[in-house]
Amino acid sequence: MTLQPVLINGQWRQSVSPAGTFTATNPATKTPLSDEYPVSAWDEVEEALVAGRRAADELRSVRPQQIAEFLEQYALNIEARSAELVEMAHIETGYPREPRLASGELPRTTDQLRQAAAAARSASWTLTTIDTQSNIRSMYGPLGGAVAVFGPNNFPFAFNSSAGGDFAAAIVAGNPVIAKANSSHPGTTRIFTEAAFDAVQSTGLPAATVQLIYRLRHEDGTRFVSHPLIAATGFTGSKYAGLQLKSAADAAGKPIYLEMSSVNPIVVLPGALEERSEEIASEFFGSCTLGAGQFCTNPGLVLLVKGEQSEAFVEQAAALFAGATPGVLLSAGGPRDIANAIETLQQNGAEVVTGGQEMVDAAGYSYANTLLRVSGEDFLRDPDALQTEAFGPVSLIVFTDSVDELQAVISEMEGNLTGCIYSHRGGNDDELYDRVAPDLRERVGRLLNDKMPTGVAVVPSMNHGGPYPATGHPGFTAVGIPGSLLRFGALLSYDNVRAHRLPAELGDKNPTGDMWRLVDGAWTTADIA
Amino acid sequence: MTLQPVLINGQWRQSVSPAGTFTATNPATKTPLSDEYPVSAWDEVEEALVAGRRAADELRSVRPQQIAEFLEQYALNIEARSAELVEMAHIETGYPREPRLASGELPRTTDQLRQAAAAARSASWTLTTIDTQSNIRSMYGPLGGAVAVFGPNNFPFAFNSSAGGDFAAAIVAGNPVIAKANSSHPGTTRIFTEAAFDAVQSTGLPAATVQLIYRLRHEDGTRFVSHPLIAATGFTGSKYAGLQLKSAADAAGKPIYLEMSSVNPIVVLPGALEERSEEIASEFFGSCTLGAGQFCTNPGLVLLVKGEQSEAFVEQAAALFAGATPGVLLSAGGPRDIANAIETLQQNGAEVVTGGQEMVDAAGYSYANTLLRVSGEDFLRDPDALQTEAFGPVSLIVFTDSVDELQAVISEMEGNLTGCIYSHRGGNDDELYDRVAPDLRERVGRLLNDKMPTGVAVVPSMNHGGPYPATGHPGFTAVGIPGSLLRFGALLSYDNVRAHRLPAELGDKNPTGDMWRLVDGAWTTADIA
Repeated sequence: MTLQPVLINGQWRQSVSPAGTFTATNPATKTPLSDEYPVSAWDEVEEALVAGRRAADELRSVRPQQIAEFLEQYALNIEARSAELVEMAHIETGYPREPRLASGELPRTTDQLRQAAAAARSASWTLTTIDTQSNIRSMYGPLGGAVAVFGPNNFPFAFNSSAGGDFAAAIVAGNPVIAKANSSHPGTTRIFTEAAFDAVQSTGLPAATVQLIYRLRHEDGTRFVSHPLIAATGFTGSKYAGLQLKSAADAAGKPIYLEMSSVNPIVVLPGALEERSEEIASEFFGSCTLGAGQFCTNPGLVLLVKGEQSEAFVEQAAALFAGATPGVLLSAGGPRDIANAIETLQQNGAEVVTGGQEMVDAAGYSYANTLLRVSGEDFLRDPDALQTEAFGPVSLIVFTDSVDELQAVISEMEGNLTGCIYSHRGGNDDELYDRVAPDLRERVGRLLNDKMPTGVAVVPSMNHGGPYPATGHPGFTAVGIPGSLLRFGALLSYDNVRAHRLPAELGDKNPTGDMWRLVDGAWTTADIA
Repeated sequence: MTLQPVLINGQWRQSVSPAGTFTATNPATKTPLSDEYPVSAWDEVEEALVAGRRAADELRSVRPQQIAEFLEQYALNIEARSAELVEMAHIETGYPREPRLASGELPRTTDQLRQAAAAARSASWTLTTIDTQSNIRSMYGPLGGAVAVFGPNNFPFAFNSSAGGDFAAAIVAGNPVIAKANSSHPGTTRIFTEAAFDAVQSTGLPAATVQLIYRLRHEDGTRFVSHPLIAATGFTGSKYAGLQLKSAADAAGKPIYLEMSSVNPIVVLPGALEERSEEIASEFFGSCTLGAGQFCTNPGLVLLVKGEQSEAFVEQAAALFAGATPGVLLSAGGPRDIANAIETLQQNGAEVVTGGQEMVDAAGYSYANTLLRVSGEDFLRDPDALQTEAFGPVSLIVFTDSVDELQAVISEMEGNLTGCIYSHRGGNDDELYDRVAPDLRERVGRLLNDKMPTGVAVVPSMNHGGPYPATGHPGFTAVGIPGSLLRFGALLSYDNVRAHRLPAELGDKNPTGDMWRLVDGAWTTADIA
């Protein structure tokens, strides 16, 4: 076994006195992989923090143009190593090479980096605001210090600590990143970080702009996100881990952006079922089992009004769920956590319609595609328990007695990333829609019509966020540029500062020509006369 | 004594089973005022929360135009009762009627409400973003539930819980407000709330859009800001109280925006002292003693490089401080807290240059205009203790040995609202400026040149915020529209939502004609073709 190096302060080196080591596992074969990775001791984390703090100082004098060049070079480096990345992610996650990794997530990742580069180049993301009469000028700029990024297990590319949305956002905002690899795909993260560091060097950024550690002891994780030298944290992962980090960061006054949990309710109104039940069942099945259901926006809860049509819908969906071979889950914890979640649901009145058991004979970690059902009445008896997330190809169908009960169920929903309403195309559900949509709207970050939530387009109007506990704050998105960048910016106002001392963004001349600025209340790309 | 009524759910009524009562005190005479106010019991707070939640639902269908009419009518109502407001604030705060209250703070307050009305009318504050190709559209909108506003003691009008910046911001974003009066000016807050509620009624807003309680038991305050029905909290006040509320709100995943403390460092570079020492001393004196020094942006720390000129500067400033009659402080706690803060400074090496005692013989609460001095070396020995805020006409001057030591002192600064650098007009200090400005920039929300920080213009580019612990988050401002409004908005994305169901802001047609929207990457007021 080879102990893989960490990247600290511009050096790929062996971890100093690691607190332990770990290996990843191929979840498709349940066999450990050969590379070994260190658990960094606290001293190493602190070394990264000090180097990150210094890199933040150095980045102040780096032009946005150079940040853009770095991101573009990095995207090219990823493309040059795409076969290696796909292979490593395939064995670390069990995801198929095609289309998921090679044609799906990899281009999504490089596209995101290029969008980030364009944002850096134009500088419009800074929301530069100028009041000429008072000569007060403001913009979003770096926080000061490195940003910690904890990536999730389920998107080894697009949300990777060293390559994903949080990484790109933190960098464009002028902050160095200390990536904490997800333990399920350390090899993928190492390759990304190599590609990133090569781009750091070839474009002349400070050496500690990107650093990598693989794992921390539990107590060092909370210490890390609350350390005086950390600027902020981006975290995507479980609610359990997220809330512990949040508590530590909050107490230290350190911003932390979390994406933690979501059951993504789907409301299917009666007219839609009458009109196109099979079509919706098929969409639902496809969305719920995509990537073995391991999507943050997986449709884990379906809300129906009782009736023949809804029984038929469940039968149609159940046949599809039962007829498909379940996918490979990311780790041994996958089937175990699903089983625990389903047990909680069952203890509170849910019944299994199909599935409900681990696929113990499968080569890889796997859990049967599963549908459960529960009455609205039972749901309302313990709405918290019945919103337990089963992270996998699992969904709970709630049969409400009436639209009143449907509304009551919706009003008990926790904060979610998404919520969706399917309604009759001809308008037969419009009155019902108006009754249920406002309550759902308020509880989700993204409201969809007639469309499953698993597609998360990287467009400026995306909100991959939502009310607590889906995330830690209802005003921020983790996907979508420029929105996601603002999380890693500080609001910097300049009052009567002499013209030659202003950042270029705040000068009378538009520094990029196409930068949007809010000047005296109007958005413009023009220079100030 | 008359027990004053609370405003709950559209009713001015006597508090139900109050947990106690209190009176305010005229700080200029140290005599209790005649009106008595209830400490609300928890049941009353919960009643307000329930009513606020319902009002939030009702506000969803209120047009922004109507919100604007409310704010404008409210401003008129305030003007109609200005004499009464000025008189009440004068006896509750000791601030002079003129110019402070009648010509300064009152017009500032109504101007702020009218700016908020204009923001509501144009709807540009929502940062509406449309991607036509994917048909995903987003905007900032209401949080769902009432916003709690805790106003500070030092701005009875402009930051009043029922009339100030947080109030206006929460309302424009579509949220009802539950105002928690500052205990030092409950009468002023009652009159404002009467004027606000009259406007609520005459413009047809939901009755519980504005509610008022005067005081809570300590444990009920934390319960209030963390309650499931509260949407968010705006707080301006002491660090001690703020951190307790923050801790409770954070644990419940409830947004809380705090403005807590700031010593607002002023760096005066050697060339500026050579050029215009007396002028700067006079500006400093004016700013530090304005309103008896009770400004969040009061210049409480001055950083100099040792030398003859800096000794002369201190003499000039000391003469001004000693020669002026100190103003009236807001409460009995004022001189006591200042004395405690000065004791902490002295215990850590600071020496009194002038002042340093309570004015026990004055008619009102008062503390001598005070200057202290300390060496850079002593400062660096315990930088935390030497950043203790003395909330009043008090400033600590730090004499550093060298520019290196000046830089070291700056790099030990906590987060502040403002930081200021005075430099030679002819450019003699430019090299020094470049050395010290970046470190200061990063530690403050607003960086000033050649200007004291006490003026806080209500312009879009203002940042009345800053890194922790000045506030709870470096990305938000409490003053300035549209920035301050975003704190009380949730990011709401609409994915494939049918056109007739979209909020007007997201439709193809620009709903107001002058609303700015980011359409396919370009800011425009045009309709979508």
